[in-house]
Amino acid sequence: MKAIVIKKPGELCIEDREMPVITASQVLVRVKAAGICGSDVHIYHGKNAFATYPRIVGHEFVGEVVSTGALVTKFSEGNSVVVDPVLSCGTCYSCKIGRHNVCKNLHVMGVHEDGGFQEYVAVEEKQLYILPDGISWEHAAMIEPYSIAAQVINRGKLAEDDHVLICGAGPIGLVILQAVKQSGAKAAVMDILDKRLDMAKNLGADCVINSKTMNVKEVIRNFTNNDGASLIFEATGNIHVLETCIHELTAPAGRIVVLGFGQEPASIPQIDIMSKELDILGTRLNNHRFPQVLDWFKKGIVYPEKIISHVFKFEDAEKAFALTQANPEDVCKIVLKF
Amino acid sequence: MKAIVIKKPGELCIEDREMPVITASQVLVRVKAAGICGSDVHIYHGKNAFATYPRIVGHEFVGEVVSTGALVTKFSEGNSVVVDPVLSCGTCYSCKIGRHNVCKNLHVMGVHEDGGFQEYVAVEEKQLYILPDGISWEHAAMIEPYSIAAQVINRGKLAEDDHVLICGAGPIGLVILQAVKQSGAKAAVMDILDKRLDMAKNLGADCVINSKTMNVKEVIRNFTNNDGASLIFEATGNIHVLETCIHELTAPAGRIVVLGFGQEPASIPQIDIMSKELDILGTRLNNHRFPQVLDWFKKGIVYPEKIISHVFKFEDAEKAFALTQANPEDVCKIVLKF
Repeated sequence: MKAIVIKKPGELCIEDREMPVITASQVLVRVKAAGICGSDVHIYHGKNAFATYPRIVGHEFVGEVVSTGALVTKFSEGNSVVVDPVLSCGTCYSCKIGRHNVCKNLHVMGVHEDGGFQEYVAVEEKQLYILPDGISWEHAAMIEPYSIAAQVINRGKLAEDDHVLICGAGPIGLVILQAVKQSGAKAAVMDILDKRLDMAKNLGADCVINSKTMNVKEVIRNFTNNDGASLIFEATGNIHVLETCIHELTAPAGRIVVLGFGQEPASIPQIDIMSKELDILGTRLNNHRFPQVLDWFKKGIVYPEKIISHVFKFEDAEKAFALTQANPEDVCKIVLKF
Repeated sequence: MKAIVIKKPGELCIEDREMPVITASQVLVRVKAAGICGSDVHIYHGKNAFATYPRIVGHEFVGEVVSTGALVTKFSEGNSVVVDPVLSCGTCYSCKIGRHNVCKNLHVMGVHEDGGFQEYVAVEEKQLYILPDGISWEHAAMIEPYSIAAQVINRGKLAEDDHVLICGAGPIGLVILQAVKQSGAKAAVMDILDKRLDMAKNLGADCVINSKTMNVKEVIRNFTNNDGASLIFEATGNIHVLETCIHELTAPAGRIVVLGFGQEPASIPQIDIMSKELDILGTRLNNHRFPQVLDWFKKGIVYPEKIISHVFKFEDAEKAFALTQANPEDVCKIVLKF
């Protein structure tokens, strides 16, 4: 079988690999579609602090059950499934307090161990969920990114009366936007690309801000009746955006959810945190949020088709990665077909 | 009547002032005792970003009702009362969401307007609470600092099974320690002064750490069974302590409550916030926490007598302020008697 392997930073190739052998608790899945995430691109460029090499990347993937281990009870051959890529030990402090996504022995498929960019993959039964009927493989590959949105709105305690600011209208910013809008809250979206802001408008953003050409502080003041944003999702990863959010865009008692994972330190004066009693909240992966997302898909209240800009055959993975880099304005989400 | 006035940074004097005139909603209180807080000392030294001058400082004060305005119904002459120094507008966004301590038009007595270091003071009826029986004026002056402890444990969502680290064993660190211990949680206390750490031990700290002479990371590892502290109260105001807490002392999914209000920026990499899904939580003053603290006093589960190191006549305020500065090892809480 074929696998997309990042041998080392900057070197991607398609390799022949042995067919995976499943254990008693595992399921063999024939991968049908897999999304390329920003963090896959970071691994390709050697900019992901968590990854090791060589690595078969890919953590947004769906497929068909081919065979099941002796202890597997809930799945059988032919099932269409989506895979939660988060693997935890179940015994550490984080797991015991119900936060398995920050497990001490965390393994994420496609990051700490091989992921979904291969024709067949062995996964634990507990990672699997049955796909709703009538959903295409390409759209189903978006379930994992939506689980990030489900996690961040949970971390930020999104409420109907929030005035939300989403920084960054990439695929993650745009799925967060959909999660926010289905809750009834008001959402502003900030980016530096007008095309992305048009997508945000198209997805129901109440306000869009090009931070290169507009006075962000003033727009947010108008949008929030002078209060500032009660909830901010910082999805650009840019420390200066984070600093600005904390310093001047947040309402008193506001919450700022930090999605970035750069190592460069942000400069944050304590007085900014204390004087408004801010909550600055980290968020990582998802904590068993797939059922919530599957419910969104069943109800038809999210729009993966508006996020997917390109579909490539998996054999063209290198082209796809290159396109992301070359053309950020036109590329939103790329899905690989297997 | 006499008032202790900080005319400008570095200049403290006792002045004759006119007797305050109360409005219909106010109560005239004869001040009996008032504590000196670190923030009063900061105002004296020109190091408080919120204060203006000249200023009668003091926000930890108690006294006797002398007279009441026409609309006052709950208090009458002779009542022994404690004053919540936090004044809010009641109409802004923060007030409407029940967070009046971060009101847009916040006025704190002794900071934004004149406070309790004067013989008589006019306060709003809504700021007052009746003192429990049998409590001395000096001890009652500690109610406000305990309201800070009540606020921070609420902000940090203290739970019985937490392993707490309190950074700083000043009066605020030590009242937080008492609040933590009465909840059943385990508490470690860190400081650079052994005398303070002895006080912490005496108040039930499960572990004390002199960060000048001990390996903090290792002690915390042992104290928490290798998990890190699930809840940290950063009460030193030192940005390097805050950076260390975030970087290496917190458990995954941990909460760090920030009490400091310096303007110097702390260096915080996003990866530290995101990889453990930390909550970094500002805390300011108190949000209607006096009833909770009065309950602690009634139950006898807090020990103000272990925090108060000195009592001065108010006429000796300058000596008291000088002593705080000159002798931090021996001075914990100074109370002024009026």
